[in-house]
Amino acid sequence: MRPERKRVVIIGGGFGGLYAAKSLGNEPVDVVLVDHKNHHVFQPLLYQVATAALSPGDIASPIRGVLRHYANIEVFLDEVVGFDLHGHRVHLKEGADLAYDYLIVAAGATHSYFGHEQWEAVAPGLKTLEDATEIRRRILLAFENAERLAAEGRNPGPLNFVVVGAGPTGVELAGALIEIARGVLVQDFRSIDPAQARVILIQRGPRVLTAYPEDLSHSAVEQLRAMGVEVRTSAVVTSVEPGLVRIGDTVIPSTVTLWAAGVSASRLGKMLSADTDRAGRVPVGPDLALSEHPEVFVIGDLAAAKDERGQMLPGLAAVALQEGKAAASNILTELQGGRRKPFHYRDKGLLATIGRQAAVARFGSIHLTGLIAWIAWLSIHLILLIGFRNRVLVLINWAWAYFAYRRGARLITDVEPIRERDRSTTEMRKAG
Amino acid sequence: MRPERKRVVIIGGGFGGLYAAKSLGNEPVDVVLVDHKNHHVFQPLLYQVATAALSPGDIASPIRGVLRHYANIEVFLDEVVGFDLHGHRVHLKEGADLAYDYLIVAAGATHSYFGHEQWEAVAPGLKTLEDATEIRRRILLAFENAERLAAEGRNPGPLNFVVVGAGPTGVELAGALIEIARGVLVQDFRSIDPAQARVILIQRGPRVLTAYPEDLSHSAVEQLRAMGVEVRTSAVVTSVEPGLVRIGDTVIPSTVTLWAAGVSASRLGKMLSADTDRAGRVPVGPDLALSEHPEVFVIGDLAAAKDERGQMLPGLAAVALQEGKAAASNILTELQGGRRKPFHYRDKGLLATIGRQAAVARFGSIHLTGLIAWIAWLSIHLILLIGFRNRVLVLINWAWAYFAYRRGARLITDVEPIRERDRSTTEMRKAG
Repeated sequence: MRPERKRVVIIGGGFGGLYAAKSLGNEPVDVVLVDHKNHHVFQPLLYQVATAALSPGDIASPIRGVLRHYANIEVFLDEVVGFDLHGHRVHLKEGADLAYDYLIVAAGATHSYFGHEQWEAVAPGLKTLEDATEIRRRILLAFENAERLAAEGRNPGPLNFVVVGAGPTGVELAGALIEIARGVLVQDFRSIDPAQARVILIQRGPRVLTAYPEDLSHSAVEQLRAMGVEVRTSAVVTSVEPGLVRIGDTVIPSTVTLWAAGVSASRLGKMLSADTDRAGRVPVGPDLALSEHPEVFVIGDLAAAKDERGQMLPGLAAVALQEGKAAASNILTELQGGRRKPFHYRDKGLLATIGRQAAVARFGSIHLTGLIAWIAWLSIHLILLIGFRNRVLVLINWAWAYFAYRRGARLITDVEPIRERDRSTTEMRKAG
Repeated sequence: MRPERKRVVIIGGGFGGLYAAKSLGNEPVDVVLVDHKNHHVFQPLLYQVATAALSPGDIASPIRGVLRHYANIEVFLDEVVGFDLHGHRVHLKEGADLAYDYLIVAAGATHSYFGHEQWEAVAPGLKTLEDATEIRRRILLAFENAERLAAEGRNPGPLNFVVVGAGPTGVELAGALIEIARGVLVQDFRSIDPAQARVILIQRGPRVLTAYPEDLSHSAVEQLRAMGVEVRTSAVVTSVEPGLVRIGDTVIPSTVTLWAAGVSASRLGKMLSADTDRAGRVPVGPDLALSEHPEVFVIGDLAAAKDERGQMLPGLAAVALQEGKAAASNILTELQGGRRKPFHYRDKGLLATIGRQAAVARFGSIHLTGLIAWIAWLSIHLILLIGFRNRVLVLINWAWAYFAYRRGARLITDVEPIRERDRSTTEMRKAG
């Protein structure tokens, strides 16, 4: 470490952290990226692992591998346990304290159960590869258990999949679930008819995909219903219990319940600021830095950043990625004696996929639905996927799933159930 | 279930069970295949998952998917807990008893620590996908920990990988480990030099690959040494402890210890016969059935089957596969009023790979080494892999690993450590 070079520490290897690092690659700074996991996950496709279309390895790249050509970047596999903002140090769980000149915190968000944390064991959320394989295990085991009971002449009862929350993740999970049941598994079972499985999507508010224009929300519901998903809007879940979900007095039997209803920022946010918002996000200035600590940038889902009109920027991969580049650029500019620029989000649009040839998309003022939106979704996600290898593999897996109506990654592997995990591990998982 | 049809129950979805099922597919019998896992694993490539070249999904297929076109075959995901050989019933853990007219037990084998079962926590063996991802996790974490210590200016100590047992699995693991260290990871780290890692292969007997002709054993050692693996023969491991392996008075520091030294048959063997051999295998007649229960066939690694000259057949996929077909054929012949045929093993040869362009092979009396043996190994394993999808994916992964000197599947995912697993789960894992 040459003494004259400034050191930038980046917390988190998601979209924000990774693109910040890439923007600092081979520049005259020393960079340390810290993440609790050794791999970057392409989160927009995580639901495809959960529904057995893709393997974990298809959507994840080792962070070291992605950054290997930048000799000025070191990667630490470690967990952040605290900050000394005045002393410019990060406290790590395994390693020694890490000194920084600039800090970029991109620790992301995790599920939120709005105070009902006990619901997590029954209704897992989808944020990590481990979440995805656990959800995959539950979905496949539900069919297996029903088959066994039916083969013994016993009544397996209803096979209901309840998805709570109809944002993009909830919509994508619901669409993929009905496709598995009606398309993929139909030939696999002898005693049950997987096509009889019900998929119920529950939304608290009056419409699905709240962040989307209203006509696209309506189109999404139409496309979901055409595929067989039951969509219930303005339905507030009051209780999640093993085997059922309550909406007030209504009891919905549920074989597998999945949670896609809310996120809250990493708990690192509270260690950085006393002024986090209701979702735990850290307020930042137009330059994405803390007002009291201009050397500390907060980006991605952890940041409460606003656009020029004072609107809160949404928790999208595209936002995190652009913020990562902007924070890096501000640091490099400042080191060369220049002045920081305010962050400007270039809106690339919104895209959610529902199923085979079913999607909704907004690009600027253009709204797309159905096949054309789906093709746009497919193309853009392939281009965005990090790493040549993953792109080719994912393409083949998708082509296979599409043409053969099969899902190759239908593996039930043993994992410790979420309820038995150390909660602190779960909480820290996204926290670098 | 039509009353006039006989029911064949198959225990285990490995090579033996799966090929028995396929041979009975669309024949005039009802078939139930029971396995504790929902997927068939292509075991000869398991070491490639453990060394991050392939993903679990690349070498595994859902059993239901493989058998979906046979309407007469049902698949149960369940665990066998006992047999009533007189009453012709199989006791299952989850489901009701299963009655059979014919039973084919193909429950395979698991690691054996020769009475030192406490070594398992320190030195995991390689039999399942979960074993493979746990071993992958340990290997990658060893490099990560060394990097962290070195980056802090502390001495990470030696980075030693010790593989106990130099059968095909041990040889393959050792070769792949040295390739990772010297080829794949070299660019990924900043503070350590992965190429300095040592790989030590320990063999109890005087030569590696004991089942192979002597000249091929010598060639294997030469090829391993040329790659940088330290091979120690006639070395009896007397103790496996965290961080070290003892060979008598010699202490070998070991960062990661892997066990490839022995297998013993599934504990289902003892439930079938009082006469199991030292490795727990069940003696069977020339028709592969129990002498006292001719309706019960035992095949694969669980069977102590002999060839015409009274030689014990080895624990190979090819043997299990042929035995599965033979048992099925004997059942069908008998149901048509014919007589059973004694099993004849058609020797397809022996093949073990060591690394890039390094392998040994015997086909009949032809012995091959180096590049040509490696090409033979590659071709044969691609052809054998079950399922079109996997074959293409594996080919791409390999081509990628070969030309780019990278390994795509370098993911460290959370799993419960082997030492914390319920031992009964571990024992039953292969037991269908």
